[in-house]
Amino acid sequence: MTNQPLIYCLTNEVTSNFVANALLAVGASPIMSQSFSEVKALCRQADCLVLNIGTACWRQALLMLKAGCCMRRLHTPIVLDPVGAGASVFRTHLARLLVRVCHPAIVRGNASEILALAGEKPTTHGVDSAVSEQEARDAATALARRYTCCVVVSGATDYISDGQQSATITAGSPLQTQVTGMGCVATAVIGAMIAREKDPVQAAVQGMQCVGQAGEYAAATAQGPGTLVPFFLDALYKGRIQL
Amino acid sequence: MTNQPLIYCLTNEVTSNFVANALLAVGASPIMSQSFSEVKALCRQADCLVLNIGTACWRQALLMLKAGCCMRRLHTPIVLDPVGAGASVFRTHLARLLVRVCHPAIVRGNASEILALAGEKPTTHGVDSAVSEQEARDAATALARRYTCCVVVSGATDYISDGQQSATITAGSPLQTQVTGMGCVATAVIGAMIAREKDPVQAAVQGMQCVGQAGEYAAATAQGPGTLVPFFLDALYKGRIQL
Amino acid sequence: MTNQPLIYCLTNEVTSNFVANALLAVGASPIMSQSFSEVKALCRQADCLVLNIGTACWRQALLMLKAGCCMRRLHTPIVLDPVGAGASVFRTHLARLLVRVCHPAIVRGNASEILALAGEKPTTHGVDSAVSEQEARDAATALARRYTCCVVVSGATDYISDGQQSATITAGSPLQTQVTGMGCVATAVIGAMIAREKDPVQAAVQGMQCVGQAGEYAAATAQGPGTLVPFFLDALYKGRIQL
Repeated sequence: MTNQPLIYCLTNEVTSNFVANALLAVGASPIMSQSFSEVKALCRQADCLVLNIGTACWRQALLMLKAGCCMRRLHTPIVLDPVGAGASVFRTHLARLLVRVCHPAIVRGNASEILALAGEKPTTHGVDSAVSEQEARDAATALARRYTCCVVVSGATDYISDGQQSATITAGSPLQTQVTGMGCVATAVIGAMIAREKDPVQAAVQGMQCVGQAGEYAAATAQGPGTLVPFFLDALYKGRIQL
Repeated sequence: MTNQPLIYCLTNEVTSNFVANALLAVGASPIMSQSFSEVKALCRQADCLVLNIGTACWRQALLMLKAGCCMRRLHTPIVLDPVGAGASVFRTHLARLLVRVCHPAIVRGNASEILALAGEKPTTHGVDSAVSEQEARDAATALARRYTCCVVVSGATDYISDGQQSATITAGSPLQTQVTGMGCVATAVIGAMIAREKDPVQAAVQGMQCVGQAGEYAAATAQGPGTLVPFFLDALYKGRIQL
Repeated sequence: MTNQPLIYCLTNEVTSNFVANALLAVGASPIMSQSFSEVKALCRQADCLVLNIGTACWRQALLMLKAGCCMRRLHTPIVLDPVGAGASVFRTHLARLLVRVCHPAIVRGNASEILALAGEKPTTHGVDSAVSEQEARDAATALARRYTCCVVVSGATDYISDGQQSATITAGSPLQTQVTGMGCVATAVIGAMIAREKDPVQAAVQGMQCVGQAGEYAAATAQGPGTLVPFFLDALYKGRIQL
């Protein structure tokens, strides 16, 4: 653990730039990698591993499994973003495999992703969500108990549960849903939080609140989703928590 | 067909974030993927496939061919962006192969890309263009007739032809040429349009007009190509057409 | 050499969009590629090759070696960014291999990357730096002499040496260190400069000054690292040097 935690990201190529800038903005240090040859070296240095399956293929799936197993042995926390779970058997099974094999401390997804992960009917429309709030909460609690992890369901109200305690967060702006990678950023920021705060529920609460508040602040002056992004990063930076 | 059409993008890694944000801004739902294992699942759900060869290697070429053949069988429209055709034999041949095998409904490129695709002398300078307008229009019409598709040549004046009818569009700002991925965005937005409007020429006209008008609007307040990007996405979002 | 030099970039996927936009802003034309099949064609057309190992795997390492050897035979300048050298044996060895085999005209990195490249103790924290200024300068000079190239150490004060002459540059804002890819952009802009100015030290000075001044200008109005990026690109564009 350092003042500037190192976050090792195996993430999707669509949002990697946004995720890296968000991690810098909250005072963390991101390292992205595509190499099998540096998994051990990066695992040893990193304070958290963030896995995001947004554009995963089998090669990247294997890379995630290798890094996940390595981090598990080192008892370093893992945060998983099951982007698009439910949209294809490949994504659903990969997300479940990563949960079972790598034991992430925290899993963050939208309602349909969490439902798919929990084995419920996959109704994902692309990477977006269309299921009832209560269904998703029940699935999250069940998932958290089954795998002894903390599950975060993002939405108008975020729901966080480790199977015992739970929390809800209402921070955030609807405009954030119009920007690609806001979910990926939330997952990564939670990763930055768990490097400092060892309780997964607390880390998830802090991360979601941090992202939601920055989103609200940015949406107040943004003219649309385009200007929301730079304003959001500025807000994250100004409100930066000393990690 | 849904209110929020799902656009399956096999696109280049340089501009994938911009493309995803532009699709969200016009009310579409993007899904990017690098996996062979989810091609069928995503083809079945998607309302359009966008192929962009900007950073393609053989692996991605095969992925595009697989998805393209699958979409063709499903009679779902395909839009192709032959980025940099003419800059290398690899790109030129890949672009031609995709046209012949996948039967895209619409092909959008700059003048030199369309010329290269039509078998004329490739004079591309990197991914930029330097050929006469009339040459490009003739090549576009010939190409459209040969492959029974709609061809869009981007430029100061955009030219759209399906070999029978044609249209020109003059919307847009020169500053848009100073931003990487404006062409990729135009192609993807056309993809969002064809998911609603079945006539390819109409969809191309709507897409190019939408991007051109947002560009003009954004350029009026932008201080340069940097601020043009967020302002452009805001403008796309504000003028969003109900898909 | 053309008025708009073509810069062939084998670069990392996290910052490729920012790099492409920065190259356009200074009046250069970027082409990114992931294909082995177009290496020769692109090398023949390009005015400079930029190698950046930020997310390299073995496949990309081989691609860089192929392109590097091809450019060396063509006597076209190569600029290398050894992102994260010192963070893993893989990165350190790949960076050294590229220096030895491809003979880059210029190598640009932060202090710990240059130290790692020179064979000193690797103390990189992720892709960030934490070593003394004098250590880094000595390593840069030694490296420049050993490989007959120009070495740039980025920092609060940039240091540039070809082993004989040296220069320091103090332009820039601390806020630039809070944005991912500022280093990658500096390397690419140096690549755009060397396509015009054949003296590597002069090209490096021009590139670092250009990026530093744009950074200062942008930081004066930016509210944080988020708005810094579009303002920085605008500033690069406004101050654009005719290449």
